[in-house]
Amino acid sequence: MIQVIGIGMGLGQITTEAAAALRECDYIIAASKRDDDGLLALRSAVCDAYDLPLIVVPDPERNRATESVRGEAGYVGAVTDWHAARVAAYREVISTHAGRPGFLVWGDPALYDSTIRIVRELDDDYSVIAGISAPQLLAARHRIVLHEVGQPVLITTQRRLASAVAGGSENVVVMLTSGFADDLVAEAGIADWQIWWGANLGTPSERLVAGTAGEVAEQIRSARDAARAEAGWVMDLYLVRKP
Amino acid sequence: MIQVIGIGMGLGQITTEAAAALRECDYIIAASKRDDDGLLALRSAVCDAYDLPLIVVPDPERNRATESVRGEAGYVGAVTDWHAARVAAYREVISTHAGRPGFLVWGDPALYDSTIRIVRELDDDYSVIAGISAPQLLAARHRIVLHEVGQPVLITTQRRLASAVAGGSENVVVMLTSGFADDLVAEAGIADWQIWWGANLGTPSERLVAGTAGEVAEQIRSARDAARAEAGWVMDLYLVRKP
Repeated sequence: MIQVIGIGMGLGQITTEAAAALRECDYIIAASKRDDDGLLALRSAVCDAYDLPLIVVPDPERNRATESVRGEAGYVGAVTDWHAARVAAYREVISTHAGRPGFLVWGDPALYDSTIRIVRELDDDYSVIAGISAPQLLAARHRIVLHEVGQPVLITTQRRLASAVAGGSENVVVMLTSGFADDLVAEAGIADWQIWWGANLGTPSERLVAGTAGEVAEQIRSARDAARAEAGWVMDLYLVRKP
Repeated sequence: MIQVIGIGMGLGQITTEAAAALRECDYIIAASKRDDDGLLALRSAVCDAYDLPLIVVPDPERNRATESVRGEAGYVGAVTDWHAARVAAYREVISTHAGRPGFLVWGDPALYDSTIRIVRELDDDYSVIAGISAPQLLAARHRIVLHEVGQPVLITTQRRLASAVAGGSENVVVMLTSGFADDLVAEAGIADWQIWWGANLGTPSERLVAGTAGEVAEQIRSARDAARAEAGWVMDLYLVRKP
């Protein structure tokens, strides 16, 4: 039995269910990416709190050159290759360690995370525990609801924002961002939309900016740089809404 | 200072942050709806666990006749009146009770919940703690990601499902449901879509159904009836995805 455990942004967002699942694990597997020492420290804090050994697996590189040259097909292809490499790396860890493994997932395993798809290939005997996701922390810190009364909310990636707006979406949470800039505002045509932005939510380097999209790009860039300087890493997202 | 605390579906989904916020409250205010004795019991269990008095405020009735006759405008109007009545009821409780109030919110205050909007009118000095939402429990129990790799997910209400599909949405979480039936499948044109459905998630009366939308409506109706019979109430939702 493999546990896939959503941990939000760390100890503050661990649920009772997640804590119980952690206690059923014998060790934790975590992927380490380049330049995420700070994130690895947050994961280590969770393992320390539950007295669990942490086995860090260097994350295979994604071929971002292919992605950018080949667009959507390149993106999916690069992600597919990267999944296969991750499956192989995790299989190796599991075959050489006795006991029940667990995977810690930032945020919620149900949103823009590969762990469930990878674990499914390792062993069908797995369970999933939901974690607080970044859009939820964004809403909580800004003290807002993610939508107007009875309205929908679209959750998507930055690469799809402009087409979502062109397709009629008026209330969009954007994940997998690489910051927020005036050229994106122009491309998506959202200069007069409201934006609620956040970086490193739930951690000491958290930053928040809210305002009109066409007016706050510079403020967001500056806050994003400050979060990265303070933490050594940055993860950000935002909600944009048509007025 | 008012605390708005997301509690998921109860004690299993309380986060460390939510537990800390509960300890800062002197009492909890909860709205009671008709026919939700079972839900009130779940809330009482949280209050008991944190040794907090629970003040139950009968929820004002929404004018559903107006809603159904007047469509979208009627819906928004009825919700607006209902909010005003709730604000008045909560103001009365706060003015007659000493100490710091907290509101327990099912799921996450950021999704299809009125508490933040109401509390904002009571006092601008409030904080919000995110909770595990129903779409997340749905994904965790079905052990799925809410979208295909890099794809968007739309979260909306059942009354908007058919128009969302007509507008090109291919991966939709539907909340505020009143069950799932073949006429909805026909109206939305999703007979060959996949569906992952759940009721009373995270509670002993939880039910799950997955399959092809055009084939499982009867199975879902039966499971929904069973959940309601077991718990005395039913709350359900589903994810539908184009093949």
